[in-house]
Amino acid sequence: MPEIYLDDLAPGQLHELGRHTVGADEIVAFASLWDPQPFHLDEQVAARSIYGGLIASGWHTCCIFMRLFADGLLNRAAAMGSPGIDELRWLRPVRPGDTLFGRVEVVEVRPSRSRPDCGIARLRSSMRNQADEEVLSFDAAVMFGRRPGAGAD
Amino acid sequence: MPEIYLDDLAPGQLHELGRHTVGADEIVAFASLWDPQPFHLDEQVAARSIYGGLIASGWHTCCIFMRLFADGLLNRAAAMGSPGIDELRWLRPVRPGDTLFGRVEVVEVRPSRSRPDCGIARLRSSMRNQADEEVLSFDAAVMFGRRPGAGAD
Repeated sequence: MPEIYLDDLAPGQLHELGRHTVGADEIVAFASLWDPQPFHLDEQVAARSIYGGLIASGWHTCCIFMRLFADGLLNRAAAMGSPGIDELRWLRPVRPGDTLFGRVEVVEVRPSRSRPDCGIARLRSSMRNQADEEVLSFDAAVMFGRRPGAGAD
Repeated sequence: MPEIYLDDLAPGQLHELGRHTVGADEIVAFASLWDPQPFHLDEQVAARSIYGGLIASGWHTCCIFMRLFADGLLNRAAAMGSPGIDELRWLRPVRPGDTLFGRVEVVEVRPSRSRPDCGIARLRSSMRNQADEEVLSFDAAVMFGRRPGAGAD
């Protein structure tokens, strides 16, 4: 049974999601499959790019966030997927050896009008590196089930 | 040398990006690494979810788009990464066996004021399935280098 339902979320809540350290091998392996641009694949070529060295694919950064989010919150919750996200920003490059810390802040909680058993939470999603610099931010809409018996009023 | 520079992009251009067919094994492998929610991992559990069966992680769908985008356009272009995306929507579930077709439409081309050698293109990004249903859409800002000698006026 889930521990966290829509009814347990409230604007202003902060959920810390744990950390992940990114290796060069992981950066190259991810990019080889999904984003084979030279500055994600080859240290020599990347050194001559505007980034001055190998950086992780922005989608890799999103995936690292997602894994922290699933392990740190969603898989203890009655989570039902997401219709989309807004204002995704890759704010700084992620480089080999960086340790990333995920966090979500609850911005809005809206029970569904048409489906009394669920609703949508808007979550400001963020990841920072070991220097406390924000590397990723976006607003996610996530569907959650309601606590059994809630929403009947 | 790149074939495509910022100067070669113009609003209204459509770029078809090829296709990819998604297998159940790929859906589960991706989700196991990056988005281990039950409806991405286990056909039996997924069958009892609101999705009625296994669906791909939304981030997996984004990654499939990114691979088509890199192979079909970016790796022939003077592409320099992206500061972010807006209005990302997962419009329909992606299921095992679906064939996805990527496309970008150029919406805006803006040379940089501070850096005469590059600029930003805004690209409406989209993926459709074999039934011509849109499954993913977002607006991406992508940096491109300018054709050597361009932008000096």
